[in-house]
Amino acid sequence: MIAELITIGDEILIGQIVDTNSAWIAENLNLIGIPVNRIVSISDSKSAIQKSIDEAFINSDIVIITGGLGPTNDDITKSTLNEYFKGNLAIHQPTLEHVSTIFKSRGLGLTELNRKQAEVPDCCVVLQNKLGTAPGMWFENEGKILISLPGVPFEMAGLMKNEVLPRLSKLITNQVVVHRTIQTFGLPESYLAEKLTNWENQLPKQVKLAYLPSPTSIRLRLSAYGAKGANLFDLVEGEVKKLYQVIPSYIYGEGEVSLQEVIGRLLKLNNASLSTAESCTGGAIAHLITQVPGSSEYFKGSVVAYSNTVKEELLGVNPDIIKKNGAVSKSVVEAMAKGVKEKLKTDYAIAVSGIAGPDGGTVEKPVGTVWIAIASNKSLFSKEIRFTSDRTQNIIRSTATALNMLRLILIDENI
Amino acid sequence: MIAELITIGDEILIGQIVDTNSAWIAENLNLIGIPVNRIVSISDSKSAIQKSIDEAFINSDIVIITGGLGPTNDDITKSTLNEYFKGNLAIHQPTLEHVSTIFKSRGLGLTELNRKQAEVPDCCVVLQNKLGTAPGMWFENEGKILISLPGVPFEMAGLMKNEVLPRLSKLITNQVVVHRTIQTFGLPESYLAEKLTNWENQLPKQVKLAYLPSPTSIRLRLSAYGAKGANLFDLVEGEVKKLYQVIPSYIYGEGEVSLQEVIGRLLKLNNASLSTAESCTGGAIAHLITQVPGSSEYFKGSVVAYSNTVKEELLGVNPDIIKKNGAVSKSVVEAMAKGVKEKLKTDYAIAVSGIAGPDGGTVEKPVGTVWIAIASNKSLFSKEIRFTSDRTQNIIRSTATALNMLRLILIDENI
Repeated sequence: MIAELITIGDEILIGQIVDTNSAWIAENLNLIGIPVNRIVSISDSKSAIQKSIDEAFINSDIVIITGGLGPTNDDITKSTLNEYFKGNLAIHQPTLEHVSTIFKSRGLGLTELNRKQAEVPDCCVVLQNKLGTAPGMWFENEGKILISLPGVPFEMAGLMKNEVLPRLSKLITNQVVVHRTIQTFGLPESYLAEKLTNWENQLPKQVKLAYLPSPTSIRLRLSAYGAKGANLFDLVEGEVKKLYQVIPSYIYGEGEVSLQEVIGRLLKLNNASLSTAESCTGGAIAHLITQVPGSSEYFKGSVVAYSNTVKEELLGVNPDIIKKNGAVSKSVVEAMAKGVKEKLKTDYAIAVSGIAGPDGGTVEKPVGTVWIAIASNKSLFSKEIRFTSDRTQNIIRSTATALNMLRLILIDENI
Repeated sequence: MIAELITIGDEILIGQIVDTNSAWIAENLNLIGIPVNRIVSISDSKSAIQKSIDEAFINSDIVIITGGLGPTNDDITKSTLNEYFKGNLAIHQPTLEHVSTIFKSRGLGLTELNRKQAEVPDCCVVLQNKLGTAPGMWFENEGKILISLPGVPFEMAGLMKNEVLPRLSKLITNQVVVHRTIQTFGLPESYLAEKLTNWENQLPKQVKLAYLPSPTSIRLRLSAYGAKGANLFDLVEGEVKKLYQVIPSYIYGEGEVSLQEVIGRLLKLNNASLSTAESCTGGAIAHLITQVPGSSEYFKGSVVAYSNTVKEELLGVNPDIIKKNGAVSKSVVEAMAKGVKEKLKTDYAIAVSGIAGPDGGTVEKPVGTVWIAIASNKSLFSKEIRFTSDRTQNIIRSTATALNMLRLILIDENI
C-alpha cells in the first residue's frame, strides 16, 4: 500500500505557514510500513481538490487530506468531498453533541456555523475529533481509501494516533516492520557518526539506520522490514544492545521519551524532589518539567530570578559575590542552586545563569556563555558552557543541557 | 504569471525533514506578485521529476525546483534536467574556480565528485551560488521558465534573493499585490466570523480574506491583487480601518507580532515592570515573556509555585485561604498576584492557578478549570475560565489568556 498526502489551504501557497503536518504524517505512515509517494499542497478550490484526488488515486491506494475543515466560507473540503463521493450532508448526532459540549464548557452557545461542523457526508465513517470541533472523515471507494483530517496540527495528530493509524495497521497483514528509536544527548551528529562507524558497518542488511537530529537531541532509528515470520524483533534488539555498549552515557531513553520524562521517572524512583532557579532560561526548565503529567509529585517550584534583586532577595545570593564575579559566574550559579534547594526544601536543585543575547555579551563572557549548577543532598556541581549567538537556541540548549546534567547526577548518586 | 514549486528528496517523503523552503519561496514570490498554484514534494527519481515538470507546465509559467543537486549518487536533479532540456553537461569554468576556492579555504583538495558540481547543462543560464558548491540553473523553453536551486535553505534563499527574484521582478511589469495580517485573540473562529459577517460581505471584490487559526490566536489576512496603478494599498488600508472599528479589543497586533512582544512594548512605553506567579502554567508564561530580546528591561522574575508550600512561603499566601477555598480559587490566585507583585516590587503581576490535568479534577472543578489574576498599582482583577481536558492545550491557552488579560489592563490603565 502506498499513500499520497494532500494539504489544502491558501495560507501554505502564500508561504504564511509551513506545512509541518505532511512530515508528521509521512513519518508515522512510514513507521507502520506505508511509504509516501508524493506530497501536494493546493489552494482551497473545488476544482484543485477534485483534480488532485483523481491524480493521487492513479498511483496511490490511500490519500490523506489535511485542512479546509473550518467553519468559515473559505473552508470547502467537506462539501467538495461530499460531491466527489456522491453523498448527502447530514447532521451527525454524536458530533453535534460533542461540539455542543465544547462550546457549553466555554460558556458559549451554539451558532449556526458551529452546527454546520457536525454535518458530514452520509457515505463516510466519522472519526471523532476529541481535541476540536471538525470531525475526521474516512471514505472508501473501489478499494481506495481517502481520509480527511483538520489542518490544526494537534487535532490532526490526535486523530491520526487514535483513529487513522490503528485502522491502517489492521489493513497491513503480510508485512512486519520493527522500529526502535534511541534518544541520545551530548554528541553533535558528526561526532556521534564517527563513534558509531564500526557498529554501523556491521549492521545486518535488513536493519536500516537513520539519524534524526533535533535542536536538543539526536534520535537514532533502527528499522527492519520483512515478511511475516522473520524474527526482526530479536535482530533489532541485538543491535540495540551493542549500541548501548558503544555510547552508554549518551543514551537517555528510547521511543518518544523526553529528558524531562526520564528525570521525572528517576526522581519518583528515588522518592526525591526538585526545584529550579532560572535566570537566562527564564522559566523554560520549569515549563518543560511541568509539561509531564504528574510532575507535581516531585517538582515543588521554581524561582525565575531574571533581575539580580530577585536573586538576592528570593534566593539569598550574597550581593557581594554578584558584584565581584557578575551574575553569570560559578559562585553565583552555585549560590542560586543552594538557595532554591534550601528555600523550596527539595532534594535536588537546578540553577542556570547565562547571557542569552542578543545584548549583554562582553569579550570575556560573550553571548552564549552559560553557567549551570546542580545541587543535591550530597554534592554541588557546576559547569560553564559556550553556546551560540542565537537567543532562542541558547535558551533551548541551556535547558536541555541542565536537564541532562541532572539526569547523570541522579543516576550517579542513586545506583 | 503563475508558479509551481517542486521539492525533491526522499527525506521529505519519509518525514525526516520538514520542507521549509517552499513556504519561503512562496512568500517571496507572492510579495512580487507571482501567485503559487501548487507545491509538490517528490522522491529522487528521474521519472517522478520528469512527470512533475510536465504536469507543472500545464498550469504554470514558472517552475522552481529545490533539492537533488548534491555531489552524491542519489542526487539526480541536474542530469535529469539536462536530459529533459536536451542539453550537454560541460564544466562551467567560473563555477569550477568558485568550488576550488571553497575547498582550498577549508584546506581540502578537489575530489572528482566536487569537480562534477561545476558541470552544468549547456542550455541553461548558470546562477552563481556564493554560499555553496552547487550552482543554480535557469532554463527557458517555449515561453516557460524552470529554475533549479539547491535544497540547503540558506543557499536557496541566497540564490533567490541575489539571482532569481531580481530577474523575475523584471518580467512582471503590470501587476501589484498587497497583503495585511491582523492578529486577533479571544474569539473562537466561528464567533469571529459571525461578528465579521457584515464587514466581510462589503469587502471590495479585489480584496480577499483568510482566517488563519492557531492554538492561541486567529490571524486575519487581507490580500489584494490587481493591475499596476490600482491603488490597492489604500483600498486594503481602508478595510483594515473598518475592521478595527468592528472588533477593537480583539486585535492585538499586525504582521507576525506575538502577544508577549505587544506586552513588552506596552510595558516599556509606560516604564512599568512585570512579575508572574505560576502554578498550573509551570513557568510557561515567564518562558514566553523572556523569549523576547530585551525583556530583562521590564520583566523581573517569576515564582513558579507548584506546591502549596511554595505559594505560602515565597508568595505569602495565607494557608487558611488555601485550606478553605482550594489552591484553584479566586482568593488564592489574587493572593498570589498580590504576593509576587510585592515580593518582586513590580508595577504589574500575573498569577495563574488551575487544574491542567490529566489528574486532579473534581465535579466542581474539572480538569481545565483555571483562575487568572492581574494585579496592578491601581487594581486587582481575576477571572475563572474552563479550558479543555488536554494538559498541553490547557497550559498553552492559560498562558495566552493571561497575557491577553494583562494587555487589556495595560491599555485600559495607561491611555
